[in-house]
Amino acid sequence: MARNIQSLERAAAMLRLLGGGERRLGLSDIASSLGLAKGTAHGILRTLQQEGFVEQDDISGRYQLGAELLRLGTTYLDVHELRARALVWTDDLARASGESVYLGVLHQQGVLIVHHVFRPDDSRQVLEIGAMQPLHSTALGKVLSAYDPVAHSEALEADRKPFTDRTVCELADFEHILDLTRARGYASDVEETWEGVASVAAPIHDRRRMPVGAVGITGAVERLGLDGSLRPDLIAAVRDCARAVSRDLGAGRF
Amino acid sequence: MARNIQSLERAAAMLRLLGGGERRLGLSDIASSLGLAKGTAHGILRTLQQEGFVEQDDISGRYQLGAELLRLGTTYLDVHELRARALVWTDDLARASGESVYLGVLHQQGVLIVHHVFRPDDSRQVLEIGAMQPLHSTALGKVLSAYDPVAHSEALEADRKPFTDRTVCELADFEHILDLTRARGYASDVEETWEGVASVAAPIHDRRRMPVGAVGITGAVERLGLDGSLRPDLIAAVRDCARAVSRDLGAGRF
Repeated sequence: MARNIQSLERAAAMLRLLGGGERRLGLSDIASSLGLAKGTAHGILRTLQQEGFVEQDDISGRYQLGAELLRLGTTYLDVHELRARALVWTDDLARASGESVYLGVLHQQGVLIVHHVFRPDDSRQVLEIGAMQPLHSTALGKVLSAYDPVAHSEALEADRKPFTDRTVCELADFEHILDLTRARGYASDVEETWEGVASVAAPIHDRRRMPVGAVGITGAVERLGLDGSLRPDLIAAVRDCARAVSRDLGAGRF
Repeated sequence: MARNIQSLERAAAMLRLLGGGERRLGLSDIASSLGLAKGTAHGILRTLQQEGFVEQDDISGRYQLGAELLRLGTTYLDVHELRARALVWTDDLARASGESVYLGVLHQQGVLIVHHVFRPDDSRQVLEIGAMQPLHSTALGKVLSAYDPVAHSEALEADRKPFTDRTVCELADFEHILDLTRARGYASDVEETWEGVASVAAPIHDRRRMPVGAVGITGAVERLGLDGSLRPDLIAAVRDCARAVSRDLGAGRF
């Protein structure tokens, strides 16, 4: 088996470092964070800079992520079959529910948002494509954890942080929620990730019946809730959308 | 001066290859396209795959770009000062003009779209953030070529392809358009890139009066045009927006 290439692993670690926390770092900070000699770190940064993966600020000399990552990241979306199939169905779901729609896939220890349809009400909203959501507290994350064994082990290994008083962090409680998710066919998040925000999500399967993603709506708990539980019409709309996308991906009807 | 790192340059070339044209490639295609031995190419792909930059299709064994690029590309946007400053102004421009708004910066030999506000009319539209536009035929590209010396030399070196009958490809004609752009303070594109589509753009300057990007509107030529020329109220709205963002970036008022 071929060995992995050390300089590439180091370059990837550098990009991850610049992608989290501080985001604008000097050479010394980068070298010391990764335990590299300054000369070694500089050689990697120079090459990353030349390739457009990293940019250096003229004035401060600090490094940050580069434009080539955006260009390639968008190209990743262009070839994303699940996303392409889901475009029309998620638009319909946003219109039917009046809420914003998210399509997510497992990436590392979280949910990567690969499509986001704005709530159709002309309000100013921030596009969340490319953002990550936690596995243990969001409806999308619970669906992935319940249906995808890889997501399940990632969720068990991950640090299940409490975001609000309602976040379920204990392992036994979390597993119980996943059982409930599988029994119901959908998951919810009522103020477990953001105060005042609720979400509902359902799984998407491909032609081999493998869980390949999750789709859901997110909105104010006052709009999604009804007498202490979630509105059944919204749950039905989300599950309809997930079934439609699954069918479009070639999944059997039953 | 430190040398560039060969394995990193090769990995970047591989990502560029997967980001253009075919987009799903087998090991042999990748190795032969880049003039590498199969073993060498495999070692690089394995590492890129492990880091999430490349994904391999289970069934076909072909490689494609990976999710980590989307995550990092979005993080690039999060630290983009120009984009952050422009968010509110571009929303206002979309509302005032009724057209879609694009914010672009120079990247390689083209314009990278770093922000896109949909035309406010509830129609289905495709998000273009992360997409590239040509320098020589679009309003954004002409503005960058006219004001940014680096963009200018890129535009001269680039292959100025004809996209429609109206595309200006000849060097002398192109330079004349750039002179006109500098004299007027804005650039236009009337069916020079896409049939039926027109655009207007103006330059954004930072506190050092350096041209850092361009902002513009794009829409049907029937809406943007008036008796054979572009509507003055739309040109004024675009230039107002560019000035407002420049001021927000610290540029002097005159």
